[in-house]
Amino acid sequence: MLARHAAQALAALRAQSPLVQAITNQVVSNFTANALLALGASPAMVDVPQEAGPFAAMASCLLVNLGTPAHEQRAAAVEAAQAARHHGKPWVLDPVAVGALPVRTQLAAQLFAMGPSIVRGNASEILALHALVAGERSVPAGGRGVDATASVDDARAAALALARRAGVVVAVSGPVDCITDGHWCVQVHTGTPLLTRVTGGGCALGAVMAAFAASAPDGSSLSAAAAATACYTLAAEHAAARAAGPGSFAVALLDALAALSPAQVQRDARLTMASA
Amino acid sequence: MLARHAAQALAALRAQSPLVQAITNQVVSNFTANALLALGASPAMVDVPQEAGPFAAMASCLLVNLGTPAHEQRAAAVEAAQAARHHGKPWVLDPVAVGALPVRTQLAAQLFAMGPSIVRGNASEILALHALVAGERSVPAGGRGVDATASVDDARAAALALARRAGVVVAVSGPVDCITDGHWCVQVHTGTPLLTRVTGGGCALGAVMAAFAASAPDGSSLSAAAAATACYTLAAEHAAARAAGPGSFAVALLDALAALSPAQVQRDARLTMASA
Amino acid sequence: MLARHAAQALAALRAQSPLVQAITNQVVSNFTANALLALGASPAMVDVPQEAGPFAAMASCLLVNLGTPAHEQRAAAVEAAQAARHHGKPWVLDPVAVGALPVRTQLAAQLFAMGPSIVRGNASEILALHALVAGERSVPAGGRGVDATASVDDARAAALALARRAGVVVAVSGPVDCITDGHWCVQVHTGTPLLTRVTGGGCALGAVMAAFAASAPDGSSLSAAAAATACYTLAAEHAAARAAGPGSFAVALLDALAALSPAQVQRDARLTMASA
Repeated sequence: MLARHAAQALAALRAQSPLVQAITNQVVSNFTANALLALGASPAMVDVPQEAGPFAAMASCLLVNLGTPAHEQRAAAVEAAQAARHHGKPWVLDPVAVGALPVRTQLAAQLFAMGPSIVRGNASEILALHALVAGERSVPAGGRGVDATASVDDARAAALALARRAGVVVAVSGPVDCITDGHWCVQVHTGTPLLTRVTGGGCALGAVMAAFAASAPDGSSLSAAAAATACYTLAAEHAAARAAGPGSFAVALLDALAALSPAQVQRDARLTMASA
Repeated sequence: MLARHAAQALAALRAQSPLVQAITNQVVSNFTANALLALGASPAMVDVPQEAGPFAAMASCLLVNLGTPAHEQRAAAVEAAQAARHHGKPWVLDPVAVGALPVRTQLAAQLFAMGPSIVRGNASEILALHALVAGERSVPAGGRGVDATASVDDARAAALALARRAGVVVAVSGPVDCITDGHWCVQVHTGTPLLTRVTGGGCALGAVMAAFAASAPDGSSLSAAAAATACYTLAAEHAAARAAGPGSFAVALLDALAALSPAQVQRDARLTMASA
Repeated sequence: MLARHAAQALAALRAQSPLVQAITNQVVSNFTANALLALGASPAMVDVPQEAGPFAAMASCLLVNLGTPAHEQRAAAVEAAQAARHHGKPWVLDPVAVGALPVRTQLAAQLFAMGPSIVRGNASEILALHALVAGERSVPAGGRGVDATASVDDARAAALALARRAGVVVAVSGPVDCITDGHWCVQVHTGTPLLTRVTGGGCALGAVMAAFAASAPDGSSLSAAAAATACYTLAAEHAAARAAGPGSFAVALLDALAALSPAQVQRDARLTMASA
């Protein structure tokens, strides 16, 4: 049933081609735009103050990724998140390396308070964001630079607490992804370690979640985040089967996102759901 | 005859390897630099104030693309355009999403008044720029984010009027490209829809036009823009024939730009010209 | 013996997976991150003031590349270099286009005075940096934009003088790379002209040198820079053998960096050493 929902979500995304405003780090902006285009969405990297807010009112959805938070982009992110909230557009917060570095940590707290629809991160980032929001005296560093040092299981309780506290969907990326709204927890079992050998493997997923949230047939952020993860990691499996290494994997992932059909998703997606 | 001119233009570009200063958006800077290198030009992304102007005096030509117009880059763009104009260097303006967003719209008007050699955009952008320059009360949004919503035919009259008004060559990209100096209109019939499935497919063409303008055997911006479009879209056809999707298409396009020979262009380019 | 050292250095890098802080130009940040990941290192592009310094204290090593030196990134580079120096972390300076452009030339002088472990550049850049540091009245432009116009042999004396003067390792990239500490000169004979047909071919090597310097078994910057160059250019030869052009070469280079084994390096690396 979960696989069928994911397949329907992919079909809905293709039919609607949501306009995704991506305020993201400059390392992965090209790959993120190409991943969205390949999937069938329409990317727009509008991250300049005085444009980011007005554009968020027009776009279908918003991604804010804190990977390289330069001054102007920080202002643009706040402006865009306010507009997304005001206009009821779904938006995704990806708090890259939160906890480890001061500028983005402060910004992550500010943005989280503005009520994102979905927070996506690796286990270390979700643990750090939870500690930050809970006001813990000592916030753990969000992993080693941008890499997770904690496991998804380590972050499960933090993800549930964060989701319940703020009424937000929290997606923890890892070998088995865990996505929760605080009441239910969806696990996605597809994927490949090659996603961690390419920069932006996780960042692009955040943008893909925004696209699914904008076109979700049932309007649920939980099923949108789950469907996004299922489709993206299934395409990644297809790409890994054809790749000779991380370079050809990234190229094949774009091809696979474009080639992925709802029928394949319904047949091959591997999702499970349990009460949280 | 047009195909022979395009072939000669490619040979001249390869012989001269023009130094192309590209002030462009950060999403496509890597692909743009690689497209120029593949073709045989020499790219330099000099977009910092106090460097952009002096460098424009040394470079063979300039591209200004407004895709992600951060504050410093806006200042650099104005400085470089002034220097290019002062030193008689050809320069290309690509007014990404003009009309839809305030910061770039104001900058596009300022830069257009400085007399670019070539303006390149999709149909929606050319319609919006024409309305802006003509002082129309209501400027249409430049498409849907960065995508065209109008057709090339819709924009034909605006392109002609813009070209005549300002003595500039206007290139409207689309399934059949239309390039006009206000008197003649060249149509380029090669291409592939995959160019719209890769971010920077159009942006890189703006940089390629600058390279052709810098090395044009006859010094004509019209034939330079036409030759650039003919070579670029012919290479794109070659790439599409080998690609399994948008990821491998972008890679194959770089290979095809490097492999494209003047003889192939003379044989296979499909251009037509008519009185405007 | 040199090849065996390079093989051991690669094995050490893989075992330690150094965390490489890369403050680099936005054109090549994606390719640089992917090259580091492919090789087995862990990249982090932390280039925002107030984060760059604290992060340099945590990272294994630092790269500062001056390709697109925006205002904030300049402040971050100085902050990070100071922290790296203070905490004894190896760091690499890549003075892109030094001499040709005023903002980066002033910054290069300031950073060089802070004592990098390794300076990497093409022949024109090393000639320009030497003239700048020696206080010569007329500093030669660092090539044609970002391209070298001088040969590695032209720059040999300048590299030696620069290395002796400042106790730094100087690496001149070219058809035969020359790496010197002022006393010894290592030449690396592997490579392919395709490295100059891809943007970031040299920039990524600077980051790879930082990774090798952080994990060097003998702590020597000279052997780290030589091993980095030997491994990178050997992988480039492997990639060139499989590539149909510059696009597929860049992809294959990432695959080849991931596939390169210490045994291959020991067998195929071609390094020579001579008294300077």
